[in-house]
Amino acid sequence: MKVITRFVQGHHFIGSDEKNVQTHFDSRSDGFPAGTTPVAAILQAMAACSAIDVVDILNKKRKTVTNLVIETDGERAEEHPRVFTKAHLHFKLTSPDAEVKDLERSIELSQDKYCSVSAMFSRSGCALSWSAEVVRE
Amino acid sequence: MKVITRFVQGHHFIGSDEKNVQTHFDSRSDGFPAGTTPVAAILQAMAACSAIDVVDILNKKRKTVTNLVIETDGERAEEHPRVFTKAHLHFKLTSPDAEVKDLERSIELSQDKYCSVSAMFSRSGCALSWSAEVVRE
Repeated sequence: MKVITRFVQGHHFIGSDEKNVQTHFDSRSDGFPAGTTPVAAILQAMAACSAIDVVDILNKKRKTVTNLVIETDGERAEEHPRVFTKAHLHFKLTSPDAEVKDLERSIELSQDKYCSVSAMFSRSGCALSWSAEVVRE
Repeated sequence: MKVITRFVQGHHFIGSDEKNVQTHFDSRSDGFPAGTTPVAAILQAMAACSAIDVVDILNKKRKTVTNLVIETDGERAEEHPRVFTKAHLHFKLTSPDAEVKDLERSIELSQDKYCSVSAMFSRSGCALSWSAEVVRE
């Protein structure tokens, strides 16, 4: 997989993937940044990676995903390099027909088997945990 | 650090950071995706994380960064979870006054000490390498 990341100005960089989809990164601490920070991006990427698995697994079980929100909370080391040492993903599914056990089983499958980004966090030494909640509309 | 990642449709998710800056993720294999894939995003985030260090270190040395492009090539495991097993970052700096040794020293400092995302890749078992090139305009 090839990606290109280009300088714009200050700390603003634009990443492009093989389909030329662009992602903005920035680390401005003052004012409004032009993109998210690289560390916030990997935390979001982990949530999205796992959530894509969850959607696919629930769809295979013929369950409806009306909404899915993942709140992710990460703690970083105090010393450089400031890696994530701990992260928690809370999955909040809105569905008319999925039960909490359906959601839990799909998250387990993702976290234990499929999710590449979660596996990299975990193998790097970050303690991962998760919780699940189903909301009926 | 708290981030929120929300379902839109299909595999399209939007991540938000603490400043409410949004990042799009998608894994559509057909047509035009609404965001980059989570795995492409972490590869770009690593490049951006390290490049931000490089810009700061070069600026401290009073060197001019006219442009900086990082070409990143990653290889993934064949089996699930499809983690990155190898990645190479090529830093191409355009500058009227920086020498290759200035760029190399700044990359070394970032890779060995400061870059959180590179450290997580490396600690997860991904073999990281890099190369440097300076272009005069």
